[in-house]
Amino acid sequence: MPEFLHLLPPKEALERLFPYLDLQSQTELVELGDALGRITAAAILAPHALPSFARSTVDGYAVMAADTYGASDSMPAYLKILGEVPMGTSPSFQVKKTTCASIHTGGMLPIGADAVVMLENTQSALAQEVEILRAVAEGENTLQVGEDVMVGQEVIPKGILLRPAEVGGLAALGITQVKVRCRPRVAILSTGDEIIPLGTSLEPGKVFDVNTYTLSTLISRAGGEPVPMGILPDKADSLALCAAQALQTCNMVVITAGSSASARDLTAQVIDELGKPGVLVHGVNVRPGKPTILAACALPGQTPKPVIGLPGNPVSAYVIACLFVVPAIKALLGILHEAPRPSVEARLTLNVPSEAGREEWVPVRLTKSRSGWDAEPVFGKSNLIFTLVRAHGLVCIPPDATGLNVGESVEVYLIE
Amino acid sequence: MPEFLHLLPPKEALERLFPYLDLQSQTELVELGDALGRITAAAILAPHALPSFARSTVDGYAVMAADTYGASDSMPAYLKILGEVPMGTSPSFQVKKTTCASIHTGGMLPIGADAVVMLENTQSALAQEVEILRAVAEGENTLQVGEDVMVGQEVIPKGILLRPAEVGGLAALGITQVKVRCRPRVAILSTGDEIIPLGTSLEPGKVFDVNTYTLSTLISRAGGEPVPMGILPDKADSLALCAAQALQTCNMVVITAGSSASARDLTAQVIDELGKPGVLVHGVNVRPGKPTILAACALPGQTPKPVIGLPGNPVSAYVIACLFVVPAIKALLGILHEAPRPSVEARLTLNVPSEAGREEWVPVRLTKSRSGWDAEPVFGKSNLIFTLVRAHGLVCIPPDATGLNVGESVEVYLIE
Repeated sequence: MPEFLHLLPPKEALERLFPYLDLQSQTELVELGDALGRITAAAILAPHALPSFARSTVDGYAVMAADTYGASDSMPAYLKILGEVPMGTSPSFQVKKTTCASIHTGGMLPIGADAVVMLENTQSALAQEVEILRAVAEGENTLQVGEDVMVGQEVIPKGILLRPAEVGGLAALGITQVKVRCRPRVAILSTGDEIIPLGTSLEPGKVFDVNTYTLSTLISRAGGEPVPMGILPDKADSLALCAAQALQTCNMVVITAGSSASARDLTAQVIDELGKPGVLVHGVNVRPGKPTILAACALPGQTPKPVIGLPGNPVSAYVIACLFVVPAIKALLGILHEAPRPSVEARLTLNVPSEAGREEWVPVRLTKSRSGWDAEPVFGKSNLIFTLVRAHGLVCIPPDATGLNVGESVEVYLIE
Repeated sequence: MPEFLHLLPPKEALERLFPYLDLQSQTELVELGDALGRITAAAILAPHALPSFARSTVDGYAVMAADTYGASDSMPAYLKILGEVPMGTSPSFQVKKTTCASIHTGGMLPIGADAVVMLENTQSALAQEVEILRAVAEGENTLQVGEDVMVGQEVIPKGILLRPAEVGGLAALGITQVKVRCRPRVAILSTGDEIIPLGTSLEPGKVFDVNTYTLSTLISRAGGEPVPMGILPDKADSLALCAAQALQTCNMVVITAGSSASARDLTAQVIDELGKPGVLVHGVNVRPGKPTILAACALPGQTPKPVIGLPGNPVSAYVIACLFVVPAIKALLGILHEAPRPSVEARLTLNVPSEAGREEWVPVRLTKSRSGWDAEPVFGKSNLIFTLVRAHGLVCIPPDATGLNVGESVEVYLIE
C-alpha cells in the first residue's frame, strides 16, 4: 500500500516538475487564417507603421487648424473647398491657408491639413465654400502615422497565444504567415484490466475507456496534440514497453493508472524505471487525485521529458489533468503571459464540508439568480463521470478551511 | 447624416433580433472524437446503467455487512477468504455468511456481498482468514448499479455544448457517434473603397482587411462557420448583389461597413431593400459601436434571416461582434443553457471617465498583483486594432455611471 506520508500541496508538487518543462517543441510556419489558438515562436515586428498615413476619424472638412481659431456660430470662419478626398487613394491637391477639403472617416489627410472639423460643426455657405462654426486644435479628429504602432516596433512578443485580436492585428500589418510553436505531442496510456475500447461489447466487470476521450479533448484545448496509445493491461512489461515508445515519440507522457492499489504501485514502479531522474512526486495533498505521480524520465542520451501518472477515476483524472497536465503543456509551449483562469463569482446554495489540511476541488452547477450566479455543489463519488457533466465549474476549498458555508461568495473556475 | 435620435441599449436592441434567430441549422452525425465544442441536436439517453455492475470503491474485502457489526480492534470479526475478485470479469464465487473475498478498487462485487471493508481496517489472520477491525454499513465503499446514471435516463439534453466532461460521459456509455447541430454559416462582407486584401501591396490611402480575419476567428470560436465573401467597394449595386447571394447560401450575414457616413447610409439602405422586414435597429446606445445595424431579411419565399451591419473600425467591429454576432450564433445553434461569460475580478489602476447615459466597453490589460489581478485601461481610439492586442479583457461601464474610479473592483470579461 502506498502510504503518502509526506504529501505536497498541488502548487509545490507542480514546482518539482517545472525544471523538466523546458520549451521542447519545434516551430512551424502557419497561414494567418490557421493561426488562432497557436503560440508565437518569435517576436513579431511591424513591417510598416499603423496607420501608414494620416487619416481622418470623422466625416467633415480637412483644414489647417490655425484657420479655425476663434470660429463660432456667431463668427464662422469661411474656407474655400478644394474638393473631396477620395477614399483609398492620395488626394491630388494640397490644403493651404483659408482652404479646406471635404473628407470621410478613414480618408487620407491632404498635405497641408493638420486637423478635421466635424460635419456637424459646419454649415454650407456659397458654392465651394463652407462655414466653420467650431475651432479645432492641431491634430484634432485625426490619426497620425504610427499612432497605433511604429514601424519596426515589437507588436507581439514571442510566447503569446494568438486570439482573434492578434489575428486582426497581424492582418492590419499585412502579415500572412506566422511562426508558431508546434503543438507538443502528449501520449495517453490508459491502463487497467477492466478497461475496454469503445465499439466493443460491454461485458460484466468491464468499463469503457473514458480517460482517453476526456484527456484527448482537454489536451487539444490546452494547445497540445493528443496521441492515444491505447489500453494496456495491468502488466509491468507491456506498460514499460509502451511508455518507452511514448517517451521516444512524444514530448510528454500521461498514464492513467488502473485504479487498484496494485496497479498504482505498478505504474509508479514502471515510471521510476523508465529513465532518470524518475518519480519526483508520488501523492499530492489534494482531493480528488491524491495518488497522482509526477516524474521526469530520460531515454539514453536524451534530456528528461515529463511523465504524469493520473488516477484512474475519471473525475480525479479530469481534475488532476487541469491542475498538472494543462499547465505542463502551456510550459512546454513557452506561454509567457500568465493568463487568469476564466471564472465567475457565485453564491453557494449549500454547505460544503471539507477535511482541513488538504486542498479540495468541488464540482458545482451554476444557475442564474436575480443578483448573479448561484453555485450548487454537485456531490458524487469521483468515479462518477456524470458528476462532471452536471457541473459547470470547480470551486477550490483551501487546505486551511474546514468547508464552505451556504451563501458564501466563491470563485468558480469554469469547466470549458 | 444618420441622426440616431432614439438609440436602444444593446440588450434591448438584441431582443429586437431574437424573433429571427430561430434554430435554423441542420443536424449531422459526428464521431465522438470530433464532438468537442459541438451542440447536441437531440437529447441523449443512457443505453445502459452506469456503473453497469456493483463495484468496490476501495481496496479491501467484499463482505456481508451484517457479519461486521460490532467488529473493533479489540473484538475483530473473523471471515474466511473465498478468493480474489479478478479485475474486469465476474467473480466465480458467491459471498455467504462468515465469508469474504479480496477485492480491488473497481472490482465487481461478488453475489452476496453488500459492502467492502477497507484494507486498512483489516489484519491478516490465519491462511485464508482475515480479521475485520471496523464494522461497515450495507452499501459502504461500493457503487451501486445506476448510481451515476440509470438505463434510459436523459444524460445530456439537446442544445448542450459538448465539453471534455460530456465527451468523457458519452465514452463511459459506449456512445461513439453524436447528433449535433451543423455549424451556422455566417457570411462576412467587408466593404470600403479603401480596404485591400492581404497579399497585395499597401498603397497610400489603403488599409488591409482586418475585419474579415477578426470576425472569422470570432465566428468559428462561437461555433459558426465563417464564409468570407471578399471585399466590396462602396457601391450599392455590387453590395446588394453580394448580400443577396450571401443570404441565399448562409444562415446569417455580417457586413462591416466602410466607415464613412455615406457608406454607412449605403449599407443600411442596401440591407433594408434586401428583404422584409428589413432594418430593425439602426444605431445602438453603446460605445464603441453606435452605428450598428440589426436587421432580418427574407428572400422571396423564404423566412427572414439575421443580417448585422458592423462599424468598419476594427475595435468597434470586435466589440459589437461580441455583443451581437456571438449571441446570434448561439441562438441559431439552439444553445439552451445560459453560460456565464468567462471573467475575472480585478482592481482598476486608473480612473476611467465615461459619458453618462450610454453603455461603454473599455479594453483593459491584466497584471498579477499581490492580492489578485490589476486592470489597467488601454486607452486608444477605436480605429487602433493594437489597442485590443494590448488588452486581456473588456470592462463594461453601465449607462448610469459617469465612469469608474481607481481602486474600484471591476468584472473583466476575457478576450479569448
